[in-house]
Amino acid sequence: MPKNCEAARANLESLYRIFTVPEAPGSTLGAIDQAIAADVAGFLQTHIVATERSMEEIEAQFSSPAIPEEPTYVSDYTEFVKKHLVAQSVHTAAPGFVGHMTSAFPYFMLPLARLMTALNQNLVKVETSKAFTPMERQVLAMLHHLVYRRPDAFYPPWIHNSQHALGAFCSGGTIANVTALWVARNRLFAPSGTFRGIAQEGLGRALAHRGVDGIAVLVSERGHYSFGKATDLLGLGRDNLVKIPTDSCNRIDLQQLRAACRRLKEQNILPLALVGIAGTTETGNVDPLEALADLAGELGCHFHVDAAWGGPTLFSDRHRHLLSGIERADSVTIDGHKQLYVPMGAGMVVFKDPTAVSAIEHHANYILRHGSKDLGSHTLEGSRPGMALLVHAGFSIIGRKGYELLIDLGIERARTFAEMIRQHPDFELTSEPELNILTYRYCPADVQQTLATAPPPERTAINTLLDQICQLMQKNQREAGKTFVSRTRLHVAGYGEDITVLRSVLANPLTTDEILSAVLAEQCEIVRQPEIQALLRQVGDICASLGRTKEGDRHS
Amino acid sequence: MPKNCEAARANLESLYRIFTVPEAPGSTLGAIDQAIAADVAGFLQTHIVATERSMEEIEAQFSSPAIPEEPTYVSDYTEFVKKHLVAQSVHTAAPGFVGHMTSAFPYFMLPLARLMTALNQNLVKVETSKAFTPMERQVLAMLHHLVYRRPDAFYPPWIHNSQHALGAFCSGGTIANVTALWVARNRLFAPSGTFRGIAQEGLGRALAHRGVDGIAVLVSERGHYSFGKATDLLGLGRDNLVKIPTDSCNRIDLQQLRAACRRLKEQNILPLALVGIAGTTETGNVDPLEALADLAGELGCHFHVDAAWGGPTLFSDRHRHLLSGIERADSVTIDGHKQLYVPMGAGMVVFKDPTAVSAIEHHANYILRHGSKDLGSHTLEGSRPGMALLVHAGFSIIGRKGYELLIDLGIERARTFAEMIRQHPDFELTSEPELNILTYRYCPADVQQTLATAPPPERTAINTLLDQICQLMQKNQREAGKTFVSRTRLHVAGYGEDITVLRSVLANPLTTDEILSAVLAEQCEIVRQPEIQALLRQVGDICASLGRTKEGDRHS
Repeated sequence: MPKNCEAARANLESLYRIFTVPEAPGSTLGAIDQAIAADVAGFLQTHIVATERSMEEIEAQFSSPAIPEEPTYVSDYTEFVKKHLVAQSVHTAAPGFVGHMTSAFPYFMLPLARLMTALNQNLVKVETSKAFTPMERQVLAMLHHLVYRRPDAFYPPWIHNSQHALGAFCSGGTIANVTALWVARNRLFAPSGTFRGIAQEGLGRALAHRGVDGIAVLVSERGHYSFGKATDLLGLGRDNLVKIPTDSCNRIDLQQLRAACRRLKEQNILPLALVGIAGTTETGNVDPLEALADLAGELGCHFHVDAAWGGPTLFSDRHRHLLSGIERADSVTIDGHKQLYVPMGAGMVVFKDPTAVSAIEHHANYILRHGSKDLGSHTLEGSRPGMALLVHAGFSIIGRKGYELLIDLGIERARTFAEMIRQHPDFELTSEPELNILTYRYCPADVQQTLATAPPPERTAINTLLDQICQLMQKNQREAGKTFVSRTRLHVAGYGEDITVLRSVLANPLTTDEILSAVLAEQCEIVRQPEIQALLRQVGDICASLGRTKEGDRHS
Repeated sequence: MPKNCEAARANLESLYRIFTVPEAPGSTLGAIDQAIAADVAGFLQTHIVATERSMEEIEAQFSSPAIPEEPTYVSDYTEFVKKHLVAQSVHTAAPGFVGHMTSAFPYFMLPLARLMTALNQNLVKVETSKAFTPMERQVLAMLHHLVYRRPDAFYPPWIHNSQHALGAFCSGGTIANVTALWVARNRLFAPSGTFRGIAQEGLGRALAHRGVDGIAVLVSERGHYSFGKATDLLGLGRDNLVKIPTDSCNRIDLQQLRAACRRLKEQNILPLALVGIAGTTETGNVDPLEALADLAGELGCHFHVDAAWGGPTLFSDRHRHLLSGIERADSVTIDGHKQLYVPMGAGMVVFKDPTAVSAIEHHANYILRHGSKDLGSHTLEGSRPGMALLVHAGFSIIGRKGYELLIDLGIERARTFAEMIRQHPDFELTSEPELNILTYRYCPADVQQTLATAPPPERTAINTLLDQICQLMQKNQREAGKTFVSRTRLHVAGYGEDITVLRSVLANPLTTDEILSAVLAEQCEIVRQPEIQALLRQVGDICASLGRTKEGDRHS
């Protein structure tokens, strides 16, 4: 013990106190708890997306690399958090925040998330989770059932089977996609004869065993960037992520896909997996899943569907048909924190074949022992929180019909917004909403006319200026903090080069038509800013020069 | 719209309600919130680890694969959760739960975790996180500073640098370890000349480019099972995870490590990384990090330290020296949800070289654009919650000195427990606590004596029976639910074959010496159960037969 015993004892006692649940709501910690809850409720009730403060100013508060020597009072820290963190956060649940895949979530998620945190279960093993393990297994079965619609009698042998799992609960869609391709890779190079499988012998020997020069994943150029990470991580190399161009509806071009498969064969590269997208991140379109399933069958390769965004469309009687063929996928990714309206950190992948995850099975001496029901034997991650509770709660409380309403509402609202954009003379819709995502850009009516017939050099020059306008518009709107859309760069059919577009995701049930009008109105307001006006004058000059040329042509 | 417009509108309205924060504490949802909080507080204040209920009974409540059609009242669902989930969870924070790496955590973590959930920031990009991004960058810098102790002036150019990150925040230690080896692999096979790097060309071409037959990771046989997953995932193959035997203190045997390196060279396999463990999962020992750093330097390979458990020992002036050499590691994993006392889901890896993560850099068109400060450009995961807040809160509120107290307390308590076991005639300490983890087993005093001189066949027979006793003891204690230790199988110096041992982790500051006495007392009680008595009789028979033999020897 240090010399000053009394001080040390005081320290220890205050240490014990912070580990003890406050007994009464009137305790100091109870009061702080309520103050935090009130502060965050206040923040969430504003309709503002973010305050106008530069990143540099914010960073100044988070710049010391030294961990403080001395403890701080919880109350002081709470004041710091309210002022410098909460107030400077992005209100991702704001009804005017229609640029990314975050939404408001049902209020009941909050007390249940708190419960989950308080119980601090670790889902890697039964010994630290008990009832949470069967619950997570049920959630995976429910998702499997949603996707594959197997009869109820299919499930009892598998749902709580210690040897298997119907899928894997993950921290997010990226880990879910990686898990799917990991399973696919290990199944493609399963043990056979003297070859003990890729998991044991590695990719180099696996390729030699099959006598191929590589394995490839094929996905449309709208595929999520996690597939690039996955091919890097799994050792395939990004060269072997074959990105197939899309048709005018942002869906994978099947002819080009077949051509790519032929080229791979010539290069002695084996297709590992075809990936279909059910709700592309940028435009929300759905690949032709039936056709992809057919082709995967022909090729004898894994068929994965990334339905991280669009999966919950399966809840809707009206729109389910858009995902037709998903039930033929070998694996499907669906995110909880997207259209299941669960807080951040809930990705899931399910496998048609309930024995598929054996391909990545692993054990240890102190947990994940053979025969245990530990979920960690079949997950990429180790220790994991009980996020499955929140998906379970959503399924139970909102129900299939509730989710159907949410899905239908989002698609309806996207169509309304698309119509507003189409009606507006100065905006162009650059992708129709198939689900609830659309893209558009600012392009004044007269420029639209000029572009329709402009020769390539001038067209490119105009588009480059419009790209800059789009980028500035998005940046200035974000920084003003009232409403928010995102932006991306896309190849849009009929536009020649890739163009920069604004992107809107309509999943927040609190978003109204009025708010969407306000989004467009604010963008028109931003156009009046001098830097954008200067760019518009340059566009005008090019249009004018083209006008003169045409005039000249006519007169010559 | 469906026919029955009124019903549909009512549905929509109730849907809106569940997305709205309750305004007053007196609202229905507010009341439910309080009821859940009270229930979980009640659960956490019991000192019981788990109720005695079979998994099969629990599973029966989680067996329907169908997502319910109709919504459920939040209050009904809450009742279900209280009865079938909370009551059937494992009280991982109980002071008598000394078997795994979960502990009580400071109370302030709960309101802050709720705040984190409510704000629902997505740390993949600034556009959905704003202040959370600089905060996470600061947390990584603080951890970097804790490990590498670079002068304060080192950090300003890096901490908020859009091109780089000092590390990666992950969902857990497994992803952190995978990230470290992924970076190491991509740096080993960086672009050079016409070779465009492994990230682009894949492992097959990378091996060919270097003219090697494989790459290997070397770690002691006490290494965490995540390294097996990592070598599988990254395409190396589990054959290339070279597990080196340990010395009598569960530390990597350096001579055998050097011998393994020579063998790899003969096999034309390149060492990718040496892994040092700072706190082995099973026994809490620390590898000789200085010597490993020297050898990694000689070999010119990556040196990773898995300090998921033991990293926070760096807070302690008294015990920091145990991790000497960690500052020479190229990468270090530390878990927040272990000895930083943060709820589940906070792994971190830091890299000595602040440009290291460029090796896994990736971009997309709609986020992670070049020049953005988006953290997602350098993480394995995509969307992620703002768990960094809880690490930031721990660092700020507990402070370096507070963590030092916690670390010192745990090591002190482990030594006390070790002494209790040593003093007890019927238990054997099978690994000394270097940090705050120890292993032991039940072995009656007279059997200990017999084993000391027993010939191999009888020794094995006795150990096999003791293994069964150990296994039953652990199982029955877990099922009784009063206290909890875990078990594993270890090679223990001087014991011949691997044996099953009980494992205790002493990190919960609420655990008292009295509770540890009770753990041993309960185990002695369990020994009196008929099934264990039967096994002990068999042990007795073998001992007696050996006694007779000796007697015979003496008389002959």
